[in-house]
Amino acid sequence: MWTKRTDLAVEAKEIWKESAEKTTELKGVKSRDTEDNGFKITTVEILDDEGAQALNKPVGTYITMEIDKLVRREDNAFTLGAETLGRQIAEIMKLGDGDSVLVVGLGNDAITPDAIGPQTAKNTMVTRHLVEKMPEEFGSVRRVSVLVSGVLGTTGIESAEFIKAVAERLKPNQVIVVDALASRKLARVCRTVQLADTGIVPGSGVGNSRAAISKETLGVPVTAIGVPTVVDAGTLAADLAEQAGAKDLNPEDLSQFGGSMIVTPKEIDNNVSDISKLIGYGINLALHKDLEIEDINMFLS
Amino acid sequence: MWTKRTDLAVEAKEIWKESAEKTTELKGVKSRDTEDNGFKITTVEILDDEGAQALNKPVGTYITMEIDKLVRREDNAFTLGAETLGRQIAEIMKLGDGDSVLVVGLGNDAITPDAIGPQTAKNTMVTRHLVEKMPEEFGSVRRVSVLVSGVLGTTGIESAEFIKAVAERLKPNQVIVVDALASRKLARVCRTVQLADTGIVPGSGVGNSRAAISKETLGVPVTAIGVPTVVDAGTLAADLAEQAGAKDLNPEDLSQFGGSMIVTPKEIDNNVSDISKLIGYGINLALHKDLEIEDINMFLS
Amino acid sequence: MWTKRTDLAVEAKEIWKESAEKTTELKGVKSRDTEDNGFKITTVEILDDEGAQALNKPVGTYITMEIDKLVRREDNAFTLGAETLGRQIAEIMKLGDGDSVLVVGLGNDAITPDAIGPQTAKNTMVTRHLVEKMPEEFGSVRRVSVLVSGVLGTTGIESAEFIKAVAERLKPNQVIVVDALASRKLARVCRTVQLADTGIVPGSGVGNSRAAISKETLGVPVTAIGVPTVVDAGTLAADLAEQAGAKDLNPEDLSQFGGSMIVTPKEIDNNVSDISKLIGYGINLALHKDLEIEDINMFLS
Amino acid sequence: MWTKRTDLAVEAKEIWKESAEKTTELKGVKSRDTEDNGFKITTVEILDDEGAQALNKPVGTYITMEIDKLVRREDNAFTLGAETLGRQIAEIMKLGDGDSVLVVGLGNDAITPDAIGPQTAKNTMVTRHLVEKMPEEFGSVRRVSVLVSGVLGTTGIESAEFIKAVAERLKPNQVIVVDALASRKLARVCRTVQLADTGIVPGSGVGNSRAAISKETLGVPVTAIGVPTVVDAGTLAADLAEQAGAKDLNPEDLSQFGGSMIVTPKEIDNNVSDISKLIGYGINLALHKDLEIEDINMFLS
Repeated sequence: MWTKRTDLAVEAKEIWKESAEKTTELKGVKSRDTEDNGFKITTVEILDDEGAQALNKPVGTYITMEIDKLVRREDNAFTLGAETLGRQIAEIMKLGDGDSVLVVGLGNDAITPDAIGPQTAKNTMVTRHLVEKMPEEFGSVRRVSVLVSGVLGTTGIESAEFIKAVAERLKPNQVIVVDALASRKLARVCRTVQLADTGIVPGSGVGNSRAAISKETLGVPVTAIGVPTVVDAGTLAADLAEQAGAKDLNPEDLSQFGGSMIVTPKEIDNNVSDISKLIGYGINLALHKDLEIEDINMFLS
Repeated sequence: MWTKRTDLAVEAKEIWKESAEKTTELKGVKSRDTEDNGFKITTVEILDDEGAQALNKPVGTYITMEIDKLVRREDNAFTLGAETLGRQIAEIMKLGDGDSVLVVGLGNDAITPDAIGPQTAKNTMVTRHLVEKMPEEFGSVRRVSVLVSGVLGTTGIESAEFIKAVAERLKPNQVIVVDALASRKLARVCRTVQLADTGIVPGSGVGNSRAAISKETLGVPVTAIGVPTVVDAGTLAADLAEQAGAKDLNPEDLSQFGGSMIVTPKEIDNNVSDISKLIGYGINLALHKDLEIEDINMFLS
Repeated sequence: MWTKRTDLAVEAKEIWKESAEKTTELKGVKSRDTEDNGFKITTVEILDDEGAQALNKPVGTYITMEIDKLVRREDNAFTLGAETLGRQIAEIMKLGDGDSVLVVGLGNDAITPDAIGPQTAKNTMVTRHLVEKMPEEFGSVRRVSVLVSGVLGTTGIESAEFIKAVAERLKPNQVIVVDALASRKLARVCRTVQLADTGIVPGSGVGNSRAAISKETLGVPVTAIGVPTVVDAGTLAADLAEQAGAKDLNPEDLSQFGGSMIVTPKEIDNNVSDISKLIGYGINLALHKDLEIEDINMFLS
Repeated sequence: MWTKRTDLAVEAKEIWKESAEKTTELKGVKSRDTEDNGFKITTVEILDDEGAQALNKPVGTYITMEIDKLVRREDNAFTLGAETLGRQIAEIMKLGDGDSVLVVGLGNDAITPDAIGPQTAKNTMVTRHLVEKMPEEFGSVRRVSVLVSGVLGTTGIESAEFIKAVAERLKPNQVIVVDALASRKLARVCRTVQLADTGIVPGSGVGNSRAAISKETLGVPVTAIGVPTVVDAGTLAADLAEQAGAKDLNPEDLSQFGGSMIVTPKEIDNNVSDISKLIGYGINLALHKDLEIEDINMFLS
């Protein structure tokens, strides 16, 4: 049978439900739906080990925001979406007033579906050097630094190792990591942003686990922001086959390629660009008080 | 039922075979397999209207070269592959000694699976201006010009219209158009190059037919070089569903997205870069006598 | 002696004045200074052959707008500057209501100081295909197409030849060409935009004259928009030497390099990006009625 | 008077000589010229404080290789040049057999004359992760990691601070830093590579001193590889003015712009690309035994 891979807590819950005979309640997990500025927000809390095991995710809070409006480019969707995302980020981070933050973009800028992290970095306001060099002008601004960790093959250095090295020296109070994820369902690809207070294991969504980036390894809270940009072709095949009532199907086509094919939107380039901007602006609004979209435009231009 | 879309003549033949009760011979079509430098070559000739109708492709010659060796980066595969491809291009073009050639790269350089055309253009030796400005030095060189037709949304001009305008002025004796294609089978994606002496209808493979680029519209022979870089997700679903014996399956997931999802290799960036170089070098070897790979490296560096 | 090269009419006038014994009035040339939105505008009209010969420029109107405010990023400078530039472009073009326009970006996108043309193209609203495909929705919109002519070495086709081919087919009522220029004075580099109703000879500013793009060659009015982004190092040397009272100086350093060195701002990348956006928005405001900056942002995003 | 800025030891020596009444010998400095593969090599050794003060550079060895042949693209110049540079790098590093090396590319990839560092990084073979993951296959290969330190404005982190953080964790035995430099003479721009065993103060060549990257700050030997890609316009003016016999000249043009203008070759994009490849290949040949150009091509493709 095909493994069903997902990085999304909402999908892990679905998979649990779908598996045979799960008519009972899911213990150790709480979930609720809300709405903010017209965006649907689903919060899944994994409360204990039982919940963690059932969903195959660490204990913690997972917030999913649905961003269809943005991708459809509805009027005003960007401004409303950035505000909502900013509020959700602020809530999950529980940021202290003087907290400094290191924002890390994971992934490969040269491969579009993997470029959410580096692209978000470009939309994040960098202030640490300004605060240090011009304390009189910028003294009240939160110190934000940005790191793009690059790709192992072009650096020889694991992302986790790299971030640890930089975090040890900069000693930020909090870390945000942004990464592309794999989803199980086409309908969620480039339509969802997930926040989690659990940190991240980069590459886990596509079967390539490396060391964790989390409070355990960095010593400070790590908020993960992720966007599903692909579905693994094998996962898609398993879902389709099951729907066709053929659980043992082992499609010859897919087996030829193993896990090397992905499913992604035709408009992936525009989607990644739009969503990275949304996340960058959301981070900026969460980290700096009294900021408006127009101020961010000016700062980043 | 899902439509099965393909740009490849070899696949059109397969689809014909698979359709119900096609146990009889396919009339009006000839096909043969050969090998060159260890690369498998399949030639499909559509001889008349009957064949054309059966395969839903115009009368003409279609050559498919399998390039797995290249993608696996076997020793010497690039040099051998470029030589083979060069020979096949020369054969299908039936190039006259003094013929000038306009090479056109179709597609969108900013979207990786659509960038085969523009990337090939960068690997093609441009000589027209040299021959005209320095006839004494370059008088014996074939005149080659290169056009990247761009994307309708950024120019306001259809590719076919654009090429027609330029061809009318330059009056080349032959045109080569290079484009990304859609395949039906994952196993062919980025593993095949198709040559055709029929010209091309850009975008037809992904359901977006625009005016033809062919001998009829340009007045000179048009050789099309295409590489499948994606499978339409709907086509993949139809194949999988059929294999599962569920012909009426209408997977909820896919129907949500209609034709907006594609399946493509994880390594698409490297694949497009490698294959575009192969095609560019193949074109150079076909168009210029006594050229070696090293000469092309020097010219293009 | 060094040749003093300039593409700017205001500088041609200065050079004329500086040359020995030119105490008399300059015949055949009229000049006036005005201000719009706080931007200084200088209009030089070359009225006849006498003026043309004195300034070494064709008969016509040359408008120079000083954009220091924009480059210093003063509050609101972009909006005010785009409005002013839009008005000047509209005035010099004398555009008819139904006139269609072809906007051409000259120059090499890969070489920053030469990228004003291609970058402006990206900031220009392309509407021709919309008007043709959705006449009911876009019927009242002016038809604008955009052409980036590329570089001779990568196409084999001269810019002038290329534009002629496309203009013959599209039959626009007017053409705008945008190009980077060479200035004589450092103080004008990236601080000035020049409009001219005379068309352009691409490359003339850097000593590389090719065929003209003008009403004579295209059959329709051609408005040239240019920005000086470099000073030729030889021109700078000549000016400095003269100021030092050493007219015969032949600096050993410069003679070694001939014309191969340019002087350009350290901030050239930002400057080219800011100014290309200004010109694109100016063109959009000139070509489309009742348009606001925010509409352009939405259209281009 | 204008300050004459240079990052090159050979120029520092010239400036010393030119300054008034320096007819005596320069104490504390030794210099010699040699040739390798037809490339001229000048070695300047600053032996003590007296020499250091005279030349305004730290005590150490400075090797300058002239690369005109490469830029003129003479036959075989790349291969011969990479071999020569590799030998010079190996000599100045005095590399131990098992030494691991961290290669750092300084500068801004988005600004062509500042992109020598990041571009060289792309041409450097990264092996650290291979050695660690596949010790049986790569056990005998030297461990090389690569860091591109980015730009303060986009990270908030000083290059020196960043490199220190990474070096503390990776604990390489040696560091190589690659950076663009400022020259005093046009004739040296993009025509010279300088090696120094003294480390580097990034940005010092353009008047923007930040913390040093050197054995003192990193605890391991630091080899600096630099290429002059610009001349400061003020420095050029001072030189020209002096030649004109006008030592007190304060050119109005330049004073308007202060230090904000640079002089650079028209062909800077090609030059930076060619030279970065030369340095990357030189580093690879110095760090790995028995390597040939063709092996590097394969590894990097």
